Amino acid sequence: MKALYYEGDQNFSLRETELPALLPGEVRLKMAYVGVCGTDIHIYHGKMDARVKPPQIIGHEVSGVIAEVGKDVTDWKVGDPVTVRPLYPGTEVPSDNGFRHIGKNLKFIGIDTPGGMQEYWNVPAFTLHKLPDKLSLKIGALIEPLAVACHDIRLSNLKAGENVVVLGGGPIGLLIAMVARSKGARVLVSEVNESRLGFIRSLGFETVNPLTMDLIANVDHFTDHALADIVFEVSGAQPAVSVMTQLCRIRGRIVMVAIHPEPRQVDLFQFFWKEIQLLGARVYEPEDFDEAIQLASSGNLPLKELITETAPLSEALRVFQTIDQNPAGMKYILDCQ
Amino acid sequence: MKALYYEGDQNFSLRETELPALLPGEVRLKMAYVGVCGTDIHIYHGKMDARVKPPQIIGHEVSGVIAEVGKDVTDWKVGDPVTVRPLYPGTEVPSDNGFRHIGKNLKFIGIDTPGGMQEYWNVPAFTLHKLPDKLSLKIGALIEPLAVACHDIRLSNLKAGENVVVLGGGPIGLLIAMVARSKGARVLVSEVNESRLGFIRSLGFETVNPLTMDLIANVDHFTDHALADIVFEVSGAQPAVSVMTQLCRIRGRIVMVAIHPEPRQVDLFQFFWKEIQLLGARVYEPEDFDEAIQLASSGNLPLKELITETAPLSEALRVFQTIDQNPAGMKYILDCQ
Repeated sequence: MKALYYEGDQNFSLRETELPALLPGEVRLKMAYVGVCGTDIHIYHGKMDARVKPPQIIGHEVSGVIAEVGKDVTDWKVGDPVTVRPLYPGTEVPSDNGFRHIGKNLKFIGIDTPGGMQEYWNVPAFTLHKLPDKLSLKIGALIEPLAVACHDIRLSNLKAGENVVVLGGGPIGLLIAMVARSKGARVLVSEVNESRLGFIRSLGFETVNPLTMDLIANVDHFTDHALADIVFEVSGAQPAVSVMTQLCRIRGRIVMVAIHPEPRQVDLFQFFWKEIQLLGARVYEPEDFDEAIQLASSGNLPLKELITETAPLSEALRVFQTIDQNPAGMKYILDCQ
Repeated sequence: MKALYYEGDQNFSLRETELPALLPGEVRLKMAYVGVCGTDIHIYHGKMDARVKPPQIIGHEVSGVIAEVGKDVTDWKVGDPVTVRPLYPGTEVPSDNGFRHIGKNLKFIGIDTPGGMQEYWNVPAFTLHKLPDKLSLKIGALIEPLAVACHDIRLSNLKAGENVVVLGGGPIGLLIAMVARSKGARVLVSEVNESRLGFIRSLGFETVNPLTMDLIANVDHFTDHALADIVFEVSGAQPAVSVMTQLCRIRGRIVMVAIHPEPRQVDLFQFFWKEIQLLGARVYEPEDFDEAIQLASSGNLPLKELITETAPLSEALRVFQTIDQNPAGMKYILDCQ
C-alpha cells in the first residue's frame, strides 16, 4: 500500500510500504480523507523534527472506514465509517489532575506516532468515533478541528445571546465562530488578511481588519457598548494579546486557543480591574467529538465552504507548497482513496 | 472634631474640622480604628494625587459605632458597632455586566471621596455591615482586607484538600492564606523578606524564599508532585508572574490579586498547554463582608497577630514613615478615639 512520508526539510515522498500487523485492541482503517492542520505545516517546515523524527507518516484530521477489526475489539465492525480522536493517554501522573486528554505523558497520534496520510492505518479502537451514514467522509475529516472548536466553546461556558469576538480568522477561528453562532451568540471576527475577510463575510459574519480599522471602537459599536462576553484568541500574535483585555466587559472571558511559543506582554491590570478570566483550552475530550459529529450532521454549519481544495495524496507536496503561498486559503484535504 | 488630612507629598496634618451635615440615607459614625492599606501608602507617596486631590481625608479599613442616624435610614440604630464596605456604585453602564462592585463609574470611598481617618464620619447606610458585639473594634478594622481575601478565595472556587500557593506574604497574602487554610486547603507562602518569612512560619504556614530556594521544586515536594491547584499572585512582581504558570497542575487556577501597573511577560503557552485559568479578582461583594465578619468572629484566624502596631491618629505621619522603613511590618492601625 501507499503511504506519505514526511522526509524532513519541506519534503514528502509517497512510498510503497507494509502496514504493521494489527495489534489487539486496534482496528485497521481504510483511509478516506485527511485534513492538513496548522501543526502539519509546522512539521513540514521542520520545526517539530525533535518530536516527529522523519521519515514519518503524519496527519491526524481523518475519516475512514473500518477494514479489519483486531482482537479484543468489541462494538466495532468492518464497514463502519469513523473518525479518530488522535490522543493516546500515557501513564497518569499526579499533576494531570485527572485530565487525561492533556496529561503529561499524552502522545498525540499523527505527531508522536504515525499518522493517517496513507491508504490503511492501524489505530487503537478507543480513539474511534462513529460517523453517521448521512455525513460525507470529506466532512468527516473536519470533525477533529471542529471538536477543537467545540472544546473551546464548552470551556468558555458560552450562553445564547452573548457577544463573541474571535481574534484570527483561520480554520480554527472560523470553526469557533460557527459553533458560537450555532449556540445563539453574536459573533465578530477580527482578521488581518483581506481575502480571508471577504470569505468570512460571505459566511455571514461581521468582520474587522484591525490593521485598518479601530477594533475596540468596532467591538464597542457591535455590542452596543456592552463589550465582549468572550474573546477567543486564535491568532497567536502580540497585537491581539495586547488588545484582548480591552475588548472584554467586566467578568468577560478570554479563551486562549492559540499557541504562543514566546512569553507575551499581557495587561494583567485589566484582569484585576475588570475581573476578567483567561481560560486555556487545548485539544478535546470525547464529548467534544460527539458534539462535533452531531453539529456537522445537523447541516447547520457551512463546513463545506471551509474546504479550499481537495487533492490526492500523491499531490501532497504541491498542496503544502500551495498552503505556504496562499495565506488566504482555509482547509486543504488530502484524498487517500 | 479632629480629622487627618493627606496634604500631598508624604505629608499629613491633624486638623480641627467641621463634619458636613448628615444627608438622608447616611449615618454618622464615631470612628474607632482605621487600618493603613497599601493603597494609602501609594496615596501618601503622591502616586494617586490625580484621584485623591489633597488635602483629603483618606482611610477605608474601618470600624466604628453609629452616633447618629440620618433621615430615611431604617435597620440601623445609635450604638451599633459597624464596619464599612467602601464602595459607592455609580451609574450602571452596559459593560458593567451587572457587577456593580467594580462597575465603570464606581467610586471608592476613602480614595475618590473622603475617608475614615477622623473622629466622626458620614457614610451611606448601604455601605454598613454590623459587627457582632463579641468582635473587638480593633479586629473590626481588619474586616475590609479580610473581605478582599474572602472574595479572592470565593472566586478561586477553592475546595477542601486543595494545594494552594500564595505568592507574596504581605497582609493580603496572609489573609488569603488564613482563609484558605480555614477552608481545609494546604497552604504554602512564597515571600522574599526573611523577617516576614519567620513571622509567617510562626503562624504555622509552610514558606519558601524564592530568592534563596527553588520555588518550583519546593511546590513539587509540598504537593507530592501534584503541583498547585490554586496560585494566588499577590506580589505584583515580574518574577512571580514568570513562575506562576509553572507552579500549576493541569486545569490549575491562578488568581490575580496584585496590581501590575505595567504589562508583564506571561507564558501564555502554559495556559494553553495545561488549560490553566487566570481569574482576576478585585475588592468584594456584600457576601464577602458577611463571610469575613463570620470568620473573624469564629476566632479561628490569627488576625490579632497581623497587627504590627496600633497608634493614635495624631501619630499618623510617623506611622506612615515607619511603614516605609520597615518592609517586614504587617498591619498598622490608627486609633481615632
